[in-house]
Amino acid sequence: MIPSPLHTNLLRLGILCLTLTLSVLSFSCNQEGKTENKTELKNQKPVLSLSSSQAEEIKGLLAENKVLKTSFDQHQKKADKAILNGVEIPMPKDPGGGYTHEKHKRNYGEMYAAGITYAITGDTKYSKFVADMLLGYAEMYPKLPLHPKSKENHPAGKLFWQGLNESVWLVNSIQAYNLVSDAISKENKIIIEDNVFKKVAEFISVDSKKTFNKIHNHGTWAVAGVGMTGYVLKDQDMVDRALYGSNKDKETGFLKQIDMLFSPEGYYSEGPYYQRYAMMPFMLFAQAIQINQPDLNIFEYRDQLLGKAVTTVLQLTDENGAFFPFNDALKEKNYLTSELIFASNIAYAYYKDTSLLPIILEHKKVSISGAGLEVAKALKDFKPKAYEKKSLLITDGKDGQDGGLALLRMPNGRNNQKLTSVFKFASQGMGHGHFDRLSIFLYDGKQEILQDYGAARFLNVESKEGGRYLPENNTWAKQTIAHNTVTVDETSQFGANVKTSSKVSPQLLFSNLKDANLQIVSAKEEDAYQGVMMQRTLALVKKEASERPPFIIDVYAIKAQESHQYDLNFMYQGQVMETNFEYLKEKTLVPLGVKNGYQHLWKLAEGNSNKNFATLTWLNQNSFYSISSLVNTDSKMVFSRLGANDPNFNLRNDASYMIRENNKKNHVFVNIIEPHGNFDPKLESVQNPHSDVNNIQLIYSDEMYTIVEVIFKNNEHYTLMIVNQEHDPHKQHKVTIDDQAYQWTGNYNLKTN
Amino acid sequence: MIPSPLHTNLLRLGILCLTLTLSVLSFSCNQEGKTENKTELKNQKPVLSLSSSQAEEIKGLLAENKVLKTSFDQHQKKADKAILNGVEIPMPKDPGGGYTHEKHKRNYGEMYAAGITYAITGDTKYSKFVADMLLGYAEMYPKLPLHPKSKENHPAGKLFWQGLNESVWLVNSIQAYNLVSDAISKENKIIIEDNVFKKVAEFISVDSKKTFNKIHNHGTWAVAGVGMTGYVLKDQDMVDRALYGSNKDKETGFLKQIDMLFSPEGYYSEGPYYQRYAMMPFMLFAQAIQINQPDLNIFEYRDQLLGKAVTTVLQLTDENGAFFPFNDALKEKNYLTSELIFASNIAYAYYKDTSLLPIILEHKKVSISGAGLEVAKALKDFKPKAYEKKSLLITDGKDGQDGGLALLRMPNGRNNQKLTSVFKFASQGMGHGHFDRLSIFLYDGKQEILQDYGAARFLNVESKEGGRYLPENNTWAKQTIAHNTVTVDETSQFGANVKTSSKVSPQLLFSNLKDANLQIVSAKEEDAYQGVMMQRTLALVKKEASERPPFIIDVYAIKAQESHQYDLNFMYQGQVMETNFEYLKEKTLVPLGVKNGYQHLWKLAEGNSNKNFATLTWLNQNSFYSISSLVNTDSKMVFSRLGANDPNFNLRNDASYMIRENNKKNHVFVNIIEPHGNFDPKLESVQNPHSDVNNIQLIYSDEMYTIVEVIFKNNEHYTLMIVNQEHDPHKQHKVTIDDQAYQWTGNYNLKTN
Repeated sequence: MIPSPLHTNLLRLGILCLTLTLSVLSFSCNQEGKTENKTELKNQKPVLSLSSSQAEEIKGLLAENKVLKTSFDQHQKKADKAILNGVEIPMPKDPGGGYTHEKHKRNYGEMYAAGITYAITGDTKYSKFVADMLLGYAEMYPKLPLHPKSKENHPAGKLFWQGLNESVWLVNSIQAYNLVSDAISKENKIIIEDNVFKKVAEFISVDSKKTFNKIHNHGTWAVAGVGMTGYVLKDQDMVDRALYGSNKDKETGFLKQIDMLFSPEGYYSEGPYYQRYAMMPFMLFAQAIQINQPDLNIFEYRDQLLGKAVTTVLQLTDENGAFFPFNDALKEKNYLTSELIFASNIAYAYYKDTSLLPIILEHKKVSISGAGLEVAKALKDFKPKAYEKKSLLITDGKDGQDGGLALLRMPNGRNNQKLTSVFKFASQGMGHGHFDRLSIFLYDGKQEILQDYGAARFLNVESKEGGRYLPENNTWAKQTIAHNTVTVDETSQFGANVKTSSKVSPQLLFSNLKDANLQIVSAKEEDAYQGVMMQRTLALVKKEASERPPFIIDVYAIKAQESHQYDLNFMYQGQVMETNFEYLKEKTLVPLGVKNGYQHLWKLAEGNSNKNFATLTWLNQNSFYSISSLVNTDSKMVFSRLGANDPNFNLRNDASYMIRENNKKNHVFVNIIEPHGNFDPKLESVQNPHSDVNNIQLIYSDEMYTIVEVIFKNNEHYTLMIVNQEHDPHKQHKVTIDDQAYQWTGNYNLKTN
Repeated sequence: MIPSPLHTNLLRLGILCLTLTLSVLSFSCNQEGKTENKTELKNQKPVLSLSSSQAEEIKGLLAENKVLKTSFDQHQKKADKAILNGVEIPMPKDPGGGYTHEKHKRNYGEMYAAGITYAITGDTKYSKFVADMLLGYAEMYPKLPLHPKSKENHPAGKLFWQGLNESVWLVNSIQAYNLVSDAISKENKIIIEDNVFKKVAEFISVDSKKTFNKIHNHGTWAVAGVGMTGYVLKDQDMVDRALYGSNKDKETGFLKQIDMLFSPEGYYSEGPYYQRYAMMPFMLFAQAIQINQPDLNIFEYRDQLLGKAVTTVLQLTDENGAFFPFNDALKEKNYLTSELIFASNIAYAYYKDTSLLPIILEHKKVSISGAGLEVAKALKDFKPKAYEKKSLLITDGKDGQDGGLALLRMPNGRNNQKLTSVFKFASQGMGHGHFDRLSIFLYDGKQEILQDYGAARFLNVESKEGGRYLPENNTWAKQTIAHNTVTVDETSQFGANVKTSSKVSPQLLFSNLKDANLQIVSAKEEDAYQGVMMQRTLALVKKEASERPPFIIDVYAIKAQESHQYDLNFMYQGQVMETNFEYLKEKTLVPLGVKNGYQHLWKLAEGNSNKNFATLTWLNQNSFYSISSLVNTDSKMVFSRLGANDPNFNLRNDASYMIRENNKKNHVFVNIIEPHGNFDPKLESVQNPHSDVNNIQLIYSDEMYTIVEVIFKNNEHYTLMIVNQEHDPHKQHKVTIDDQAYQWTGNYNLKTN
């Protein structure tokens, strides 16, 4: 998958040794890959993503290579339309979603499109458009104060209310300038470089030093924009600040960001939604570094971490390609976004990882760049196949010691799709993190079955608080009760305090995702609630009766000295079909609680059971699912629906089902989660509409061991033995209960019948 | 499209002149298409759907014709599995969804599959399976009492709780028997015919005479089963009863059903969901008639009505192929169902209407029959294209005088999909009809924007009342408030009385669906509420600014002598984005009313406005929609959500928005319904998130005329003039208001700017 250093060198050579078929100037290219110019060089400019020779080759391929053609045509069409509309640079005024905000965003997009089009066609009307636009910015920018709305959305920008947008503007605009600069007069270049790029870079890297030095996606966009500008302006000091931080002490800057923000597997601590966003500046800047400072070997850095990061973010998606929506995340965002077109193209170009090609094919376009050219050529002979989603354990934290994520995937046994369960025991994930430790969620094929709410935000929708995160993002989406985990005493983990939460992480106890019949992960969290130790073990089990879908054994053990209320919540998606217990629906609705997210749930019904397990069965898109929970007569089953205390209809009206245990110290929740049947509207037939669970038992539970048993109606027995304390995979264990001995080796054991 | 009589004759000939390549018997076939047998005929059996020669041809084509192969393989696979499992004929016991119910359903399906497989392969293990199964039924059936659960679901069956299922059993089983009877011994044939088919036919046509003579889909299944059995048993009396009714006086029976149940365009009065179901016995029996009594020219009957009926039911579908869900209808049902595979195959075979082929291609299978063979051959050279959905006016009632339906379809101007609005002013539609006169619903491409709830039912889901219609189907789904129309004084139309409602129908006033820029329909309902005259005019208008989607002008005029409360409801699908008025959300929720469906709505919020129009904007699947309603300061805007008084979670929790006018006599609701923008998650850009409506005015309103004007923010003016009373399309009209003259010819006029 990963190319040899030789290959990487050849690639580097290819980029630097420009074949200037159109140029009248003569070049020689020596063995070390350095370019010597005999006269004034037309192509002296540093290259950020597309060399003249690559542009030539792309031009030559347009007639035959469909994906290149489609991709290029989009740029040209956009550029043509932009030229038709003319240059407009409005005085910054509006917040996100508003006119001036959107216009300045469109401007950099149009400059980039025109830059690409000039590079391929050589038509100077495109370079002129970019130059005119930049000269316009040169007029305005030096005199700009902070954006009038900047207070609403710190840290501030000038063109935009938010500094982040300013960095994104720079990343795009400097590329456009780089693509057209050979067509701009020396005088105008000086104006543009002095009054636009130096000024913007200064604003970002000096005036906004704090953000520039942040170990955070805002920092990544900042250093990428400034670093790329440094290459173009031949300002190595600017580049070094971007690489090593303002003080050039390597305590901040791009390399430090790679060190700190990614786990060894390339998991980005803010989560996949922001990883998607951050991958663009990470990869674009890395590409520029590779071209201009190849000796840094940036793509080899930290054991090829940037390549791993691209793979990991692609794996962190559901069967629709949408990013798993934990932390602040918009569910509609998937791997078809432009950020991942750039990132995956660059990753393929440098690592030649063919497993990326199915995704790239799905993109239906490539970036018009050296990387995109590589990809387009590779796609020519590529036979379409599905991107392989794997069961993965992904650690969090720079050393992989801050918990992580487990992706459990198994064929769903019904329609050639996969059952996917995500178990989150990761670190806080900075300001966009949610208080969701030990939460799980579940997909069946493309359907969400147990959801993570994601973020309460309508991106760029002006009427929804200007497109920002809504108040309900804090009051609901981040709160523990919004997740499929346990809330203690109706308060969120860490009292919903990011600072406290960021200091500690859950810990992985053991995992095995390699067994085709059993995927299992166990993790603990001992700090979220003072004096409350929590351990959750999630097992995805293939059923013996092979025609039935796999099921989940979910064991959530809690130990505490004091008595508490434990609410284990399930945000199930679908409609209630049946329960094996009685419940009473409310005649009028009041909120389930007063704060910490509870105030947003309308309480619909409450039930209890005199059986030892409670089953809820629901229907989702013609498939049946059940949760069967170990309960006692004191357990309460609470149904609720989101939407209370939501004055502006900001929340979705999703359903929620909770097992509530009151006045408990130690407690073990045991849940069996089954997909088990379906309704075929064509045949009007219903298969297996009822849960198969016949009994659930907690056989043993102490500091050392938890043993649970589930018995199905066909008399299949599954006994899961879990070691709670240590994780020596070779140690032998024995527990004797009522003369029956349970013996096994290692962290866990699943005994069937 | 429709073949010449010559062609039909040739087809008939082909079916009757069997080319018995496998038979050792000699045949001659004379010019009149009659078959003479010289010795005892192996193939003397009447043919219901598949002749020996057709079976031979299909067998020969299996290697090369993929769709035939796929279709046949499914039968063979099912038959093989059935043979492996053996014959089981349980004593009838369970209601719908229960074991014995499902088993007897499976049994006829398996017999039919085995019958087909025998016909193609000639392997007697398949005919033996059918014979054994039928001999088993011969043992049981004569002694069977009425089904023990039959009281729960009248009219009764014996094998099933419902007589309808018994008829369906017969339709399938008699075909299976017909396919294998040449392989059954004479003695067994006598046993089977005497103890099964005669008995079932007697039960259906004599014991259950009332249903048999019903002008209703239950009656259609009954006469189809009995009529086809008559052909097979060579019992012309049985056939005649099926054709002409029990008394053979043509007052009931198959032909009368065709007369009474369809409008001239082939609209079936129960609505598309049941039309889909009824088309199967209609077409199967018609096919048997065509083969056995070709002189009846059944496919030419009533100006080729059966062909029109197939086309009409296919047009009555949304862009997903799902039937428009009015009356009792399950939304998941679409034109891929087996009923429409049979029906469309037969329709193509007899009418050679190639416009059906795109649907047949989507089916990905054909019936294994003479008709299916025709279709499979036609598909060979067919170039895939989309099925053309048209704007249509479909009248209701046997003479087309009982109101009808209008399907307004126009390109949505955004993504090559259509905006589709359905306006329903049809008759009651018998027992499955809803009290929904003058209701509308709206789709944008594949998305429901303003919904019809459909039926409250989970078909065959045992835990939901055995899969029957739920109590909430009566208390909610049928009620007027569940529809996008006006409810007067919180009571449903006709006091929700089917008998009263069935006596009268709404009336079409005028329509024009041919104009690419304006589709318009006006209809009135004067009986639903005593003393309340209602007229609704729906216009789908192409916008002048061509890049914007079309919009709807909805004018709902009410005249009454007494004061009433008028609630115009919109069951919008999506999430509230913004309003141009203030509203107050409830802190605790209580139902909106106490009966007639209102008891099921939680009242969420109420608002009012000091502007003269109220706009609600919502987001559905990344697209923005708005309803802007003419209001005054007394108007109330009420938000509610379904789910109150729903003890078993039987209802979906859908949203509802209502314009409430209190204490009004005459009133005109004017609403502008716009799709107007979208959110692109890939680009993170939002286009046109706000309604474009700048003002709405009711310029004039009396007995004769209604004139409304809408002004958009780009200063486009649209003035719609409607004639309320008459419908002479050539008459000239003039109204002068404040010195401004409005002049036009015909029923309506739309003036722009």
